[in-house]
Amino acid sequence: MKTSYKSDIEIAQESTMKPIVDIAETIGLSEDDLELFGKYKAKISYEALTKIETNETGKIILVTSINPTPAGEGKSTVTVGLGDAFQRIGKKAIIAMREPSLGPTMGIKGGATGGGYSQVLPMEDINLHFTGDLHAITTANNALAALLDNHLQQGNELNIDQRRIVWKRAVDLNDRALRKVIIGLGGPLQGVPREDGFDITVASEIMAVLCLAADLKDLKVRLARMVVAYNVKKEPITVGDLGVEGALTLLLKDAVKPNIVQTIEHTPALVHGGPFANIAHGCNSVIATRAAAKLADYVITEGGFGADLGAEKFLHIKARSAGIKPEAVVIVATIRALKMHGGVAKSDLAKENIASLTLGFANLQKHIETIRSFGLPVVVAINKFITDTDLEVQTLLEWCKRESVPVALTEVWEKGGAGGVALAKTLLEVIEKEENKFHPLYDLSDSLEQKVRTIVQKVYGGKDVEFSSKAKKQLEEFEKFGWSNLAICMAKSQYSLSDDPTKLGRPTGFIVNVREFKPSIGAGFIVALTGEVMTMPGLPKKPAALNMDVNENGKALGLF
Amino acid sequence: MKTSYKSDIEIAQESTMKPIVDIAETIGLSEDDLELFGKYKAKISYEALTKIETNETGKIILVTSINPTPAGEGKSTVTVGLGDAFQRIGKKAIIAMREPSLGPTMGIKGGATGGGYSQVLPMEDINLHFTGDLHAITTANNALAALLDNHLQQGNELNIDQRRIVWKRAVDLNDRALRKVIIGLGGPLQGVPREDGFDITVASEIMAVLCLAADLKDLKVRLARMVVAYNVKKEPITVGDLGVEGALTLLLKDAVKPNIVQTIEHTPALVHGGPFANIAHGCNSVIATRAAAKLADYVITEGGFGADLGAEKFLHIKARSAGIKPEAVVIVATIRALKMHGGVAKSDLAKENIASLTLGFANLQKHIETIRSFGLPVVVAINKFITDTDLEVQTLLEWCKRESVPVALTEVWEKGGAGGVALAKTLLEVIEKEENKFHPLYDLSDSLEQKVRTIVQKVYGGKDVEFSSKAKKQLEEFEKFGWSNLAICMAKSQYSLSDDPTKLGRPTGFIVNVREFKPSIGAGFIVALTGEVMTMPGLPKKPAALNMDVNENGKALGLF
Repeated sequence: MKTSYKSDIEIAQESTMKPIVDIAETIGLSEDDLELFGKYKAKISYEALTKIETNETGKIILVTSINPTPAGEGKSTVTVGLGDAFQRIGKKAIIAMREPSLGPTMGIKGGATGGGYSQVLPMEDINLHFTGDLHAITTANNALAALLDNHLQQGNELNIDQRRIVWKRAVDLNDRALRKVIIGLGGPLQGVPREDGFDITVASEIMAVLCLAADLKDLKVRLARMVVAYNVKKEPITVGDLGVEGALTLLLKDAVKPNIVQTIEHTPALVHGGPFANIAHGCNSVIATRAAAKLADYVITEGGFGADLGAEKFLHIKARSAGIKPEAVVIVATIRALKMHGGVAKSDLAKENIASLTLGFANLQKHIETIRSFGLPVVVAINKFITDTDLEVQTLLEWCKRESVPVALTEVWEKGGAGGVALAKTLLEVIEKEENKFHPLYDLSDSLEQKVRTIVQKVYGGKDVEFSSKAKKQLEEFEKFGWSNLAICMAKSQYSLSDDPTKLGRPTGFIVNVREFKPSIGAGFIVALTGEVMTMPGLPKKPAALNMDVNENGKALGLF
Repeated sequence: MKTSYKSDIEIAQESTMKPIVDIAETIGLSEDDLELFGKYKAKISYEALTKIETNETGKIILVTSINPTPAGEGKSTVTVGLGDAFQRIGKKAIIAMREPSLGPTMGIKGGATGGGYSQVLPMEDINLHFTGDLHAITTANNALAALLDNHLQQGNELNIDQRRIVWKRAVDLNDRALRKVIIGLGGPLQGVPREDGFDITVASEIMAVLCLAADLKDLKVRLARMVVAYNVKKEPITVGDLGVEGALTLLLKDAVKPNIVQTIEHTPALVHGGPFANIAHGCNSVIATRAAAKLADYVITEGGFGADLGAEKFLHIKARSAGIKPEAVVIVATIRALKMHGGVAKSDLAKENIASLTLGFANLQKHIETIRSFGLPVVVAINKFITDTDLEVQTLLEWCKRESVPVALTEVWEKGGAGGVALAKTLLEVIEKEENKFHPLYDLSDSLEQKVRTIVQKVYGGKDVEFSSKAKKQLEEFEKFGWSNLAICMAKSQYSLSDDPTKLGRPTGFIVNVREFKPSIGAGFIVALTGEVMTMPGLPKKPAALNMDVNENGKALGLF
């Protein structure tokens, strides 16, 4: 057994990449189909995206997890390793995953490009500026804000109520001091003073819009209908009313193209888009997922947080919007996290504890039931850690057998694709054997209230929903504005099936409190806010930035 | 005579670009020396920059102008056309110019990539996100701000006086509402409340630092010494004190590499860096200019605003920092602008007016004298407009003859390089014949006061300088901090030789008032502020953004 491990960046930098042109060739894309960003990154051109539309459509596999805990589940790592495993057993596979935000990169040690021997490369570039997508989104977000404030300054023809401006500014950083600000100070030449705030870029509605748009034309339509403010009559004012959807789309014309990179084992990966998984839907872009399905037989993709949030939103929001369906869903679980769900403290996780582990199964069980209720085949992936004992693993395997749920061990962090072959084979069997009767749990024609209730009762296992008086009033307004047929996007704690992050395992009988709704009309959903939702993280006492450096030849150092 | 003209973007989009790999090949760079951004843009790798250092050094030609007026001088257009003209007469030339900021692009109609048939391409990309350099600078600027505010929030070990934080945030947009803001509101978990403000990215000291750095190592040294605040003892606190110069350099590791593109006539152009010409030095990067000189026999480059600002700063700040010297200086003048300097209103410029034109020569004359006082050969370029009458042109040509200054007509907007051949030939003669005795007008060992006085008296033709009591007090402090040996960077109105923008022509006997100094220790200069300096522009009543659009295939529309 290994006792010391290399860091992710060490493993990444010791790996040898192939030119991205060669990687693209394996999935039928020529150099002319690509817009290169150096030798190892590229965007896929509009022409190529159009050209591949007549290809056969591959099978989509969604990777999700139990409710995350500080012990870690390794969902992205399993997603990458599973793609490599498919390639190893001779299947043509592509990984479709989210691109990281700089905020967490500079803040808390931990990349978003997988880990160990299951990573996408070049990890430094992907974790830093990559191909500039997030910068384009930040710019479009802030250009809209500047144009809106300029509208106020230049006479306010649309009669915007400056107290009811809902469009916030954005930076792709963790910067708590920008959460609440007052802008426009300094006298009549410096704008109209008002309250404002900054979100992290991935929380911008533009990120959600970009990730749900079918193409550039649809992107413009969606941008035009984003609500930025209300006028003095409390009617919504949109980007279209300001007349700037063309400029915003122009700023996003390259960001909308999917990025192609490779894993350590040279499996192609489309890394594109990364909306928040609370106030947005937490999935990579529709354009990338659809392109991936046209370029390979198997697409491995993931949703943010656990199955109650990521998978629910993938299935109700992204799949519906994109007209796609997954063939099977992988639920990633770790012995460590299951023990935490069973009541073990983080400091005691290295000790064997069968009783707590068994208690923790309840969390996994609920997610299995939920995915099955969507009519989808499920496979459990046990992401193995060196502290897991044989007895613990055996106990989980036996429980899965009793529950009649297919299961496979994965060791992709340590072994790359080889550590995911068992999971890949299990998936192939399941896709072959089990019937796929995918259907959403709610219809868009259900009332907004009913849609929330369905999610709470069928996905979270809660008893009911309580709406605050503010939320109730909003529902009446939304009816009037014609927004009742939109999807619901829940903003809820990722740590618990309930809206109380301390309730681990499988809580029952709980009521979920919806305090407020936030319309994301461009994205096409109404966000239901439960509890506090952080849309601008802060930096820790010792930010990761303090360890970062670069040598004279441009080699990144200290990046995880 | 043509009566209607195509727009810049029409001309640009009708042009056929060559692959940038082919353009690079003409100056001895292989595909391996490049990091491609699509087919028509690339960055030059560190390895290539090192490799070319042993090449012969080409001759640098600096393009500057008379004091700008609303009539326009077309300095960038002449710079591009002159490069093309050198190519046409069989000389190996490269253009080295600044890259545009998105703020003006979204705000006021008018690109920064030349015009007519003298443009650099792809103009849409260069005017939008280009290769992400400005986004990287914005991010580094704001990461530093977030890390600084986090330092306050986490206990303020360095005892920073929150009223004396001088580091501002940045966006690459025109957004007046962000000029003066209050941040950190919302209670103890949301940061420390304080006054702050946003500059446009090109006004960030990081832009100036990037443009003056010799290489990545020098960049880190300069970033480390940037002053961000003062502590409670009023001592400067630097980036190095915060320990984040490594992270900032990492964020800039690609932005520091020069970008290569081409003109409509396929002349290579390094378009890299673009600091403000008032609170910074207004020249493209040292790295790009030096690389250009190693890759061609002639480098055509420019400085911001007129010769009193752009050329003075090129010669005193950039040339000194880079260890380079120009072989000759081109002063661009237009009949229209000279008439404005002679007192004609903008609405009357189409009418012939020999008397006012002759009065306006005084402005041109002062700039010729100044450049000659640096020991440098001068050529006047008359950038012809269709409204110029033969008699007006003849009058200017004769005046130049009387003044013994070489002169050439240019028609590069309409005719591309062909319209600049006369100017190129004149330059070659001048470089051949005239002696170059380049020397700065002040030494770094002069006192800061003396350096300002030298610029005011010798470059502006003013009588003297008056320092406010605040400025005087600052000079004492700077002496104490060891900053007296730095260069001076004047922030003065570009419209007049004096600090009063209404004094056109060649004012005399004036006093320049320095109200405050702003140390840019990373860049290596002290900014002397005269009058109001705008570091965050606003948007006009009808911003250019309202006309921008993009079609379904990603083609930019309405961009100028």
